[in-house]
Amino acid sequence: MIRVGIVGGTGYTGVELLRILVLHPNVEIAVVTSRSDAGQRVDALYPNLRSLCDVVFSKPEVEELSTCDVVFFATPNGTAMLMAEALLGLGVKVIDLSADFRIKDSVEWSKWYGMEHACPDLIGEAVYGLPEVNREAIKSTRLLACPGCYPTAVQLGFLPLIEKGLVDFSNLIADVKSGVSGAGRKAQVSSLMSEAGESFKAYAVSGHRHLPEITQGLEAVANQVVDLTFVPHLTPMIRGIHATLYGNVSTNVEEIQALFEERYQYESFVDILPSGVHPDTRNVRGSNRCQIAVFKPQGAGKLVVLSVIDNLVKGAAGQAVQNMNIMYGLNEVTGLETVALYP
Amino acid sequence: MIRVGIVGGTGYTGVELLRILVLHPNVEIAVVTSRSDAGQRVDALYPNLRSLCDVVFSKPEVEELSTCDVVFFATPNGTAMLMAEALLGLGVKVIDLSADFRIKDSVEWSKWYGMEHACPDLIGEAVYGLPEVNREAIKSTRLLACPGCYPTAVQLGFLPLIEKGLVDFSNLIADVKSGVSGAGRKAQVSSLMSEAGESFKAYAVSGHRHLPEITQGLEAVANQVVDLTFVPHLTPMIRGIHATLYGNVSTNVEEIQALFEERYQYESFVDILPSGVHPDTRNVRGSNRCQIAVFKPQGAGKLVVLSVIDNLVKGAAGQAVQNMNIMYGLNEVTGLETVALYP
Amino acid sequence: MIRVGIVGGTGYTGVELLRILVLHPNVEIAVVTSRSDAGQRVDALYPNLRSLCDVVFSKPEVEELSTCDVVFFATPNGTAMLMAEALLGLGVKVIDLSADFRIKDSVEWSKWYGMEHACPDLIGEAVYGLPEVNREAIKSTRLLACPGCYPTAVQLGFLPLIEKGLVDFSNLIADVKSGVSGAGRKAQVSSLMSEAGESFKAYAVSGHRHLPEITQGLEAVANQVVDLTFVPHLTPMIRGIHATLYGNVSTNVEEIQALFEERYQYESFVDILPSGVHPDTRNVRGSNRCQIAVFKPQGAGKLVVLSVIDNLVKGAAGQAVQNMNIMYGLNEVTGLETVALYP
Amino acid sequence: MIRVGIVGGTGYTGVELLRILVLHPNVEIAVVTSRSDAGQRVDALYPNLRSLCDVVFSKPEVEELSTCDVVFFATPNGTAMLMAEALLGLGVKVIDLSADFRIKDSVEWSKWYGMEHACPDLIGEAVYGLPEVNREAIKSTRLLACPGCYPTAVQLGFLPLIEKGLVDFSNLIADVKSGVSGAGRKAQVSSLMSEAGESFKAYAVSGHRHLPEITQGLEAVANQVVDLTFVPHLTPMIRGIHATLYGNVSTNVEEIQALFEERYQYESFVDILPSGVHPDTRNVRGSNRCQIAVFKPQGAGKLVVLSVIDNLVKGAAGQAVQNMNIMYGLNEVTGLETVALYP
Repeated sequence: MIRVGIVGGTGYTGVELLRILVLHPNVEIAVVTSRSDAGQRVDALYPNLRSLCDVVFSKPEVEELSTCDVVFFATPNGTAMLMAEALLGLGVKVIDLSADFRIKDSVEWSKWYGMEHACPDLIGEAVYGLPEVNREAIKSTRLLACPGCYPTAVQLGFLPLIEKGLVDFSNLIADVKSGVSGAGRKAQVSSLMSEAGESFKAYAVSGHRHLPEITQGLEAVANQVVDLTFVPHLTPMIRGIHATLYGNVSTNVEEIQALFEERYQYESFVDILPSGVHPDTRNVRGSNRCQIAVFKPQGAGKLVVLSVIDNLVKGAAGQAVQNMNIMYGLNEVTGLETVALYP
Repeated sequence: MIRVGIVGGTGYTGVELLRILVLHPNVEIAVVTSRSDAGQRVDALYPNLRSLCDVVFSKPEVEELSTCDVVFFATPNGTAMLMAEALLGLGVKVIDLSADFRIKDSVEWSKWYGMEHACPDLIGEAVYGLPEVNREAIKSTRLLACPGCYPTAVQLGFLPLIEKGLVDFSNLIADVKSGVSGAGRKAQVSSLMSEAGESFKAYAVSGHRHLPEITQGLEAVANQVVDLTFVPHLTPMIRGIHATLYGNVSTNVEEIQALFEERYQYESFVDILPSGVHPDTRNVRGSNRCQIAVFKPQGAGKLVVLSVIDNLVKGAAGQAVQNMNIMYGLNEVTGLETVALYP
Repeated sequence: MIRVGIVGGTGYTGVELLRILVLHPNVEIAVVTSRSDAGQRVDALYPNLRSLCDVVFSKPEVEELSTCDVVFFATPNGTAMLMAEALLGLGVKVIDLSADFRIKDSVEWSKWYGMEHACPDLIGEAVYGLPEVNREAIKSTRLLACPGCYPTAVQLGFLPLIEKGLVDFSNLIADVKSGVSGAGRKAQVSSLMSEAGESFKAYAVSGHRHLPEITQGLEAVANQVVDLTFVPHLTPMIRGIHATLYGNVSTNVEEIQALFEERYQYESFVDILPSGVHPDTRNVRGSNRCQIAVFKPQGAGKLVVLSVIDNLVKGAAGQAVQNMNIMYGLNEVTGLETVALYP
Repeated sequence: MIRVGIVGGTGYTGVELLRILVLHPNVEIAVVTSRSDAGQRVDALYPNLRSLCDVVFSKPEVEELSTCDVVFFATPNGTAMLMAEALLGLGVKVIDLSADFRIKDSVEWSKWYGMEHACPDLIGEAVYGLPEVNREAIKSTRLLACPGCYPTAVQLGFLPLIEKGLVDFSNLIADVKSGVSGAGRKAQVSSLMSEAGESFKAYAVSGHRHLPEITQGLEAVANQVVDLTFVPHLTPMIRGIHATLYGNVSTNVEEIQALFEERYQYESFVDILPSGVHPDTRNVRGSNRCQIAVFKPQGAGKLVVLSVIDNLVKGAAGQAVQNMNIMYGLNEVTGLETVALYP
């Protein structure tokens, strides 16, 4: 059994990790930390876990966490980087769901995240945990940086085109819509149901933290500069991301369809829909799957890729578990074989 | 492996059966019927099942269904009663999720359901599938009538009081709220999002079909007439039922709490919350669990019981699978050990 | 023109007052206060008011407010009582939308609201602003206590029965469901869309602050003790309250229907629906109307009254303006003749 | 008083016309037709109109409609074109909210709408009712074609750029999101709350009927071919459209902001937000307003325009009344001075 610790167990990615891991056959949940709820039973805060989890929240301390084989950080940005070095030094693997180790350039990171990086030396070692790109490196890493939710949906949708150089790199657009759970379990007015319900808006149009992460991922594959316009939106639902991607492509849509099917044919969690079918976010709700469709409207030069995930699963906790499975040589789908909750 | 057939696989209880059964370790889904979608792949209609279900919808015919060990009817009322006799005669067990075999009095049944019963002789044989009451009878039946969603939530909430005769039988109230999936996957104006969203209403206040079913269940335990006022409401969410139950009780609330805890201590799917905690329907969303809390406001004589289920799981497909497990001598929780989807 | 001040203009009842008053032909909005947003334009916070309101938020100070003819308090409980005396002393009328002056017994008030009352001497003078009961007293008061949202829906539904002594006073139940805007524009986890959306729950079952207010209102009419069980629920929508009221009544439903129609025939904002019609909260969304229906299910002794309002309008800001109209001798419907927003 | 007739009064645009027109000071609602509900009171179907509208639905017949001054068609496509000629011949003005007279090329129209046009001769006479472009022509027309909802949001957002030739005409993208009321009050599975709620999807990516309408409008202003990729999406809310528009622009964003402000400075229903503010659809809910913001992310060459409307108001019934006001020489805002319903 893999002894697992979760730092920051009270946020939505934390409780989603718990939802998945309490049923994972190879995992024992040993430690769940929460500074604010230490001493309280986990299932008192999350009654959906009653009878499935006896753990009591503890304060986040290296000593207790060092009894684990692997520690997940489901914390706000800036926390994992403070504890990662100590844990790694004690032989504990680290899977970070926050942004601390995603950006390779620590100056760029500081610009977007508004703080100094606490352990820039570790950044180089961290592996970016998008299994569909980095599976080999993931197998042997001890420090894994889990991709953001937007970056997962956008990169999986653009990757086949970028790898083959089939798209105009200077004119990419990602118009992406997220459910409100992406804003986390923070008490803030803008996430109230009376504010976010029954309304739709774009936000952070002048620049969102996930832009450099996406660009870094695409450029690593493209081996050249990529010009992407990324506009995130808030849509009045709880779970789900829908990325609508635009690029100039001269190849016809049948070839693109074939390319996508071939690229992801051995991927358990990327599903290319048949030609003409539009993905609904509900069809991946609660599951670790990404569903993708490609269109070329009106036969013109613009390709439209639709890519949907559940932001809390493939966009966070599910992908983190997928990475853990790879790191421990388990079947990649272990604990993740659930069916999306429809309706 | 149990060969399973599902008649009426295109409604919400049908697809929910599929969601549960595709992962059930002892089940092979052999036949799924749909008159309107015959010839189409099941996962074309329900893309959340892609890669998990290769079945093609067929027309509902006894011959093909007779190759199954057990057939679930997830059909509108009035369909199961037309096929049950033939299937039973061929040695196939029948689990009916519709109302055809729930009411023991066929005249009463006709009054509420507006048609003649096609096989009144079978009604007596049918076992009402509320495992918390009828587990022994369920083990040996070949014809199982699955309870309705409202009746499940209401009966589980009232049962301990009725069994002990602690409540005034002449003054029971069930004020129950259901999500819109309870109305099914029918194209009707009242279930449109523009109609049912952002609005709350009572309906069928003068009489709802689930009233005789609930009353029959309570009276069977009470051994006397029970006077229940039942008011169903539609609440703007997809899944979930919340029953608020009122009864006059002289016992104090601590004893009631203890009574409920004792009554359900060996039940895997009924969970009595700690004193003072209110159940949320989200905490059972997608799971087969019923969560119950008891209150006695202001120390007065009125007891308030809160009982929540997911109408499609414990209120329909999940309970049907729980019954199947019992009928086949399997561990009752097989295939049903999922965690509610929160948030 | 009536010079109006609004204290606490950033909450939902504050902005709802603004929505109504910017179009009121007899009103000039002179002062809108907000401690936290002082200095900012009102329409910067509420872009739905752009071009309709040039006011800048100011700090709440008696001096500036004393230039108004009437001041509305759309503040948390405990604020109006600190400023009311000074304003009244300067000849300014006060309309309080909070609970400070609703309960006549200041000891009872302190018990429920957890603080000492700052000006108990004024409580006696305050008129409870339910126009359908207190219209005459409202005309001449200078201190008006606006009813709570739940109390408005519940009292309007029970009143005709109580006035005629037709209902068993010892066995009343109010099962009431509210949209989430009732919890206000406070940053709290329980009101997040990810928490309150797609879920339904009861809360405060052991005792809610609106219970003594409702009981006081009903007992004043009944002239005797009334035993009411009141259970509030949170329903996943933004606006609307639906009260389902139960009482034992021996009169037949046709007479009850006639009684309700007669009782409210001259009331502009109480609408008795035709026999057999169920009210939807959406049909009063954004309007000052209360719609009521009466049922007697199964011909038994239990009467069911359904009463719906928009919690922010007839349950708060709309009723406050209705009261202002009465206090100033205006046509009671001035500024309130809007049509509910459907769909 | 203008005697108004409404053909197709049972759909969402029909009831929205009623919501606006019952309070319009210059209008008398004389005839409301509905083939399916003829004989029933309008307010029986729409209880939000109780006490405000005494009209009874009648069958749609030219004779009765000819007693009106103006007839609104809130009908499915293909109906207005069958009655328009007769009504015009009898001196009745026609305002068509359907698509029958929007497309100038009847062959193109037939291609998208799948039927022959019944009166192609009238198409040339019809004026496209986007007041911000065609106000002069609207004043004197007797046959008005009201723009579609998507076309209104998209054209208002692109117009200033197109008029000045500031944008690359060969590379425009409109990624547009609509609430579900846009699909109308038709009983269809895809609009059920259980289908459309809590989910997000694109649809009709390969081609939507509003594409030729938008292109025709933009090209008329551009005086050249415009290449637009238009992708509509369904978002889980009832009302609202959010258009996210992309175009290559070399001008800096300050000049663009100034250009938009100047272009719409005298328009009552187009509101350019201050620099940096993102529009929310809720801020125009129930109002006839369009709110627009412009951004140039990262200082690159891509301009992003955000344009929001209420699809049933500025996208349908409100704009129709705005056009009627212009046609009758009334103040353009008469009957439309409402405040958006927030929250």
